[in-house]
Amino acid sequence: MPSNFNLALVQQAAEGTPEEIFARTLAGIRHAKNQHAQLVLLQELHKTPYFCQTKDDAYFKLAETIPGPTTQALSQLAEELKIVIVCSLFEKTKDGQYHNTAVVLEKDGSIAGTYRKKHIPDDPGYHETHYFTSGAEDFKPIKTSLGNIGLLICWDQWFPEAARIMALKGADILLYPTAIGWDKEDPEAFHHLECDAWVTVQRGHAVANCIPLAACNRIGTETQATKTTTYWGNSFIAGMQGEILAQASQDKAEVLLATIDFSQKDFIAQRYPLLRHRLPEAYGDLAKITGEF
Amino acid sequence: MPSNFNLALVQQAAEGTPEEIFARTLAGIRHAKNQHAQLVLLQELHKTPYFCQTKDDAYFKLAETIPGPTTQALSQLAEELKIVIVCSLFEKTKDGQYHNTAVVLEKDGSIAGTYRKKHIPDDPGYHETHYFTSGAEDFKPIKTSLGNIGLLICWDQWFPEAARIMALKGADILLYPTAIGWDKEDPEAFHHLECDAWVTVQRGHAVANCIPLAACNRIGTETQATKTTTYWGNSFIAGMQGEILAQASQDKAEVLLATIDFSQKDFIAQRYPLLRHRLPEAYGDLAKITGEF
Repeated sequence: MPSNFNLALVQQAAEGTPEEIFARTLAGIRHAKNQHAQLVLLQELHKTPYFCQTKDDAYFKLAETIPGPTTQALSQLAEELKIVIVCSLFEKTKDGQYHNTAVVLEKDGSIAGTYRKKHIPDDPGYHETHYFTSGAEDFKPIKTSLGNIGLLICWDQWFPEAARIMALKGADILLYPTAIGWDKEDPEAFHHLECDAWVTVQRGHAVANCIPLAACNRIGTETQATKTTTYWGNSFIAGMQGEILAQASQDKAEVLLATIDFSQKDFIAQRYPLLRHRLPEAYGDLAKITGEF
Repeated sequence: MPSNFNLALVQQAAEGTPEEIFARTLAGIRHAKNQHAQLVLLQELHKTPYFCQTKDDAYFKLAETIPGPTTQALSQLAEELKIVIVCSLFEKTKDGQYHNTAVVLEKDGSIAGTYRKKHIPDDPGYHETHYFTSGAEDFKPIKTSLGNIGLLICWDQWFPEAARIMALKGADILLYPTAIGWDKEDPEAFHHLECDAWVTVQRGHAVANCIPLAACNRIGTETQATKTTTYWGNSFIAGMQGEILAQASQDKAEVLLATIDFSQKDFIAQRYPLLRHRLPEAYGDLAKITGEF
């Protein structure tokens, strides 16, 4: 049983140079530590604008290795503050592959593990297949001093399969760095529906798997080529019954905090046998390619 | 693309004899028709108290065949009113097996199909394994004049796998006859959390699969042996972005109505490629037995 810990999410806009953005991120992490955070989750691709709004090869220069400049800076900070940090970056592997990768940095500054995003969107405003290869590794939680982190990224959050596999493999919490927002062309009436669906599907993962969950999203309006998106913030932390513990605004930079309380974990797991009562023998269709039914 | 239709849920208490209860059910269906319902969904085991609170062999006498008295009465009504009715009953097969079964009766009075509950709970207040065998058939939608019905039952609603398979196989809507409530021993502070989790996990299925969904639950307090449960009502109908279209009270008999609108189905399916972007090759673990990981 993991111990309770304080989780912080750094929600902000990607305004200014990558250096300016990253300076604000580092300040946000220090602020979180001052508020007694033990784990800090950052946004998806938090050092830069969300460049995947367009397909532009110039952005490949943003890619870096792991370890590399970003993880080294955050490793130092994790060690200095004695906290766990979950960051997100555009990874270039040593053999020249590109991934959308999240990294868990331990409180001693070591790299606890990485997750390479598997569900890669290729939709208007989210042209990620131009930049990223889907991660080849199986879904698997990352062991840390605070428990097993089921680390997934943005588009993954719409797929119950990913959350379920992480829970079955012993994740204590699900964390999602995110970049999602409203297209300038979207009718305003659609905004609430869309954001609420995004929150709801993730709260559903928490309920179905009796697991706490957090998503850290960006704010601000960004334009790339002909596309303009306003990222909708609303970063949130949910408990293991899907209840909202904390939720950020849609347009303000915030360090959102909540305590992840595992004291009821046994009680909830005993009361809701949602993993014990699964019927794996009836789920074979989930692993078939659409069209084989 | 299915045409829009009006859906009604008959939420009520199981007070009085099975004949009295069923008379109220039939009146509820007629009321729904007067309100222009084209499909009426009934509660789980709607003819009787929820006898699975206890293990008592005397209740096996409630089981009946399909076709049998309940489906015959409802077939006649479906044909008379020219509506589709989804009922739920304790089934005894001709070879002496017992199932918790839901039946779709077409507007011509024929049986469009049946679903035998696959996830069978065996928890305090829900001793269903004493009475029911898990259905052997694969999850598969039932074709009707109103579209393909992904028919599941109560405990199934906590398992994203069942909802997903129904959607992958072409369900146009998910329907869940239900009997769920608060144990008398439950702390009152827990009530809202529990009911909200139940609504949220199902709304999550709607979002994840871009599919409308409805759950029809009972109300009222029932005691069997040493167990007392207050069924929490809150029957609801959600749209294909998980938005609540209608929700009943926690303690009043109601006929809940909403129009299921498929006019945005193509738009939603195109905008949210949640089925197209699945990675079946990464989901094999879902079909493995826990412990093999």
